[in-house]
Amino acid sequence: MILSNEWISGFVDGEGCFHISVLKHSDMSVGYQVLPEFTVVQHERDKQILFALKEFFKCGVVRRNHGDRWCYRIRKLDNLIALCGFFDKYQLKTKKRIDYIRFRRIINKMSNGEHLTPDGLRKIIDTASKMNTGNRNTLFQLKKGLGTR
Amino acid sequence: MILSNEWISGFVDGEGCFHISVLKHSDMSVGYQVLPEFTVVQHERDKQILFALKEFFKCGVVRRNHGDRWCYRIRKLDNLIALCGFFDKYQLKTKKRIDYIRFRRIINKMSNGEHLTPDGLRKIIDTASKMNTGNRNTLFQLKKGLGTR
Repeated sequence: MILSNEWISGFVDGEGCFHISVLKHSDMSVGYQVLPEFTVVQHERDKQILFALKEFFKCGVVRRNHGDRWCYRIRKLDNLIALCGFFDKYQLKTKKRIDYIRFRRIINKMSNGEHLTPDGLRKIIDTASKMNTGNRNTLFQLKKGLGTR
Repeated sequence: MILSNEWISGFVDGEGCFHISVLKHSDMSVGYQVLPEFTVVQHERDKQILFALKEFFKCGVVRRNHGDRWCYRIRKLDNLIALCGFFDKYQLKTKKRIDYIRFRRIINKMSNGEHLTPDGLRKIIDTASKMNTGNRNTLFQLKKGLGTR
C-alpha cells in the first residue's frame, strides 16, 4: 500500500498521538527518564495501515496493543527527529498541531541533552504538562516534586 | 484554512463516517425513507476544520452535535453524489473504503429512484446492513419486516 505525504498528515491529524512520559529511573543521573513517543492506534482490521506507515517512515514497530487494537509506535530519538522533519513539511491542521509543536520542542531539547540536567528536565516537564495527552496531573505532581530537589 | 485533497482523504479515513438510516415514513409510497449521510465529528476545539471542510465541498452544514462535539454533515443527494466523485478520485486507504463503496452503491441506486420501490428498498437495506456503522440489527429487522409485505 502506497501512502502519500498529505494523506499521512490528514490521517495522523485524526488518529495520531504525540506523547511525553516522564518516569522515575534510578539509573539516570537526574533520577527521571523522559520517554517521547509517536503512536497511531487502529482496530486490527486496519493494521495494514500501521505496517504501511512503518514502511513509509522506515522505523518504529507495529504491535498488538490490547484486545483488538494495534499500535504503530516510534520511540527512538533519532527516528522522532526525522518524524518531526516530516510534520514540519506536511503540517497538521487540527489543534493537534499545538501538541506537535510542544512535542518537537521537547525532542529538540533532548537532542541537546537537556533532559539530563534538573533545569532542562523541569522545562521539559513544563512543556509536556501543557500537552493534551492525558497525563497532565502526573507531570504536575512530578514538577512539584522536582521543585524541592 | 486551506485543505488539500489528499489531506482530506487521510483525515476522513480517520474521522469520517458514511452512514445509511432507513426510517418508517408514512408519506413515502414504500412506507420507508432512506437517509444517507456523510459526517465528520470533532471536539469543539477543532470546529474550524469542519467549517474548512464545508468551505471545501461547498455544501453541508456544521452544527453542535451534543456537549462539546461538533459535526459536519452532508445529507442532500446531489451533494452526496458530488462527494462520491471526490472519494472516487482521492481514495480512502483503511477498511472504511469498503463502507464507502457500499455507501456509493446506495447513492447510485437512490439517484435512479430505486429507493422508491419495495424491491429497490430491500436491496438498499441489504447493502446498508453490511456496513460497519452500528445499525445492522435495526436494518436486519427492517428487512425481515419488508420480506412479508
